[in-house]
Amino acid sequence: MNDHREPRYFEDYVPGLTVDCGSFTMNEADIIAFATEYDPQSFHVDPVAAKDGPYGGLIASGWHTTSMMMRLLVENYISPESSLGSPGVDDIRWLRPARPGDTLHVRAIVREARRSASRPDRGIITTVGELTNQDGDLVMRVTALNFALLRGPSA
Amino acid sequence: MNDHREPRYFEDYVPGLTVDCGSFTMNEADIIAFATEYDPQSFHVDPVAAKDGPYGGLIASGWHTTSMMMRLLVENYISPESSLGSPGVDDIRWLRPARPGDTLHVRAIVREARRSASRPDRGIITTVGELTNQDGDLVMRVTALNFALLRGPSA
Repeated sequence: MNDHREPRYFEDYVPGLTVDCGSFTMNEADIIAFATEYDPQSFHVDPVAAKDGPYGGLIASGWHTTSMMMRLLVENYISPESSLGSPGVDDIRWLRPARPGDTLHVRAIVREARRSASRPDRGIITTVGELTNQDGDLVMRVTALNFALLRGPSA
Repeated sequence: MNDHREPRYFEDYVPGLTVDCGSFTMNEADIIAFATEYDPQSFHVDPVAAKDGPYGGLIASGWHTTSMMMRLLVENYISPESSLGSPGVDDIRWLRPARPGDTLHVRAIVREARRSASRPDRGIITTVGELTNQDGDLVMRVTALNFALLRGPSA
C-alpha cells in the first residue's frame, strides 16, 4: 500500500488522467482457494481436470482477477478521503485467461467526471480499468463508476 | 450444493427460463475478511469508522456480494457438463447496500440464447442475475454472458 499518496478528490479525476496501480502475480494455491469458495468450476479448482478442459489448464476465476484488481485500485487510485463507493460497473470483459504465474498490471484511466445534479458535494467518475499480463496482452477491462466528494463545493 | 441436479446444456437455457438459486446470509466477519483482502475501504472493513461513513454502518464490498452470488449460480444454474466459462458481464448495479445479517436471494433469468456462428458445438447465453434481500428489495443486478456446449450439434 502506498501510505504516502496525496488524497484525491473529485476535482483531481480529470478525464485522461492515467494512474499506474502496480501489479500482482497469480499463484495456483490462491486461484484454487478463491474459486473453491466463490466459483467452484473444474477449470478454476482442479488442475488435473482443467488440463482436459476448455482452457487446457487451470485459470483464475474472473471474479478473482477482478477482486485482485480492485485491491490495487483501492490502494492507488480511489482515495479514502473522497470515496463514497460505487453504484456499479459496466462492460467487464475477461479477454484472456489468467493462469498461475501470470503477473498482471493494473492501469486506471479517467474517462468522464461529472458533478452530481442533486448533491453539490460530490460527483461521479467513470474509469476504464485495464489489466495486462507480462506479455503486454490485455487480459481484462472494465468500465467502473465511482462517487467521490469534491475538495470544495465551490471548486 | 445440489448434487442431484440434471445437467443443463445450451438447449436447456430457453429465454424466459427462471431459476431460483437459493440464498445466503452475509455476516460481519466474512464481510470484513473479504474486504481486507480485496477492497479495504473503511466502510467495508471498519465497523466503527463505517458508522460515521457514507452508509451509516458497515456494508459488504460489491465484489463480495457478486462472488457470493456466483457461488449459487455455479451450484444451481451453470452446469459443469456444458460450462465453457464467460467472456464477461455487463451492467452490474449495486442498488442497495448489503449489510451484516442480510439474507440475499439469487435468481437467474435467461434473456437470450444464440448459437455460435463460428463454433457449431456451443452457444452463448445472456442471463440476468438478480439479488433481493429479506425485505424483497432488489440489492443487485447483473447481465452475464456464458458459453455453453450444445447437448447435440444437430439439436
